[in-house]
Amino acid sequence: MRRYGQMIDLRPDALDEYDRLHAAVWPEVLATIARCNISNYTIFRLGATLFAYFEYSGTDFGHDMARMAADPKTQAWWRLTEPLQIPRPDRVAGEWWSRMTEVFHTD
Amino acid sequence: MRRYGQMIDLRPDALDEYDRLHAAVWPEVLATIARCNISNYTIFRLGATLFAYFEYSGTDFGHDMARMAADPKTQAWWRLTEPLQIPRPDRVAGEWWSRMTEVFHTD
Repeated sequence: MRRYGQMIDLRPDALDEYDRLHAAVWPEVLATIARCNISNYTIFRLGATLFAYFEYSGTDFGHDMARMAADPKTQAWWRLTEPLQIPRPDRVAGEWWSRMTEVFHTD
Repeated sequence: MRRYGQMIDLRPDALDEYDRLHAAVWPEVLATIARCNISNYTIFRLGATLFAYFEYSGTDFGHDMARMAADPKTQAWWRLTEPLQIPRPDRVAGEWWSRMTEVFHTD
């Protein structure tokens, strides 16, 4: 299992809409997350900053992310959420959220 | 169990020192974390921004945090790490890291 931490910013006028959407994420989107070997997935917000934490138990993260991106219901979800977000300049080219580096862990 | 997400900033000149310290956190500090009912604790860094994720399984978080703060070895550890950090204006009065709000979770 590998832990992922990711950051992205929100449009300052979109905080309530982001919270509202994420209080009731579509079941098909949740099912795709699980099918792509992601679990214990939490998103936190502080002002207009989002932090996502999840655990990945697959063997090919890039492949699983491509599978997720190919899911039509997930695409529809992202059409709602991406306009609320402001990707950061420190993200990897071709990715949306910025990857963070794990500097400490204790079980 | 309750999940916590926290943010704090680092001094831009302290990134390497922070990473170095956290690659070998003292065993007594880790033992105190566990004794205070905190598990699955990960710290991520992106540039000078830190994000901490952990799971709390106790029944009185304030009391457990007071127990942690009373531990001499933890106090000595914080004397090394706090000068590297820049607490944010959006933290709760009397706390060091800023608390984030959980807006989404899926198991």
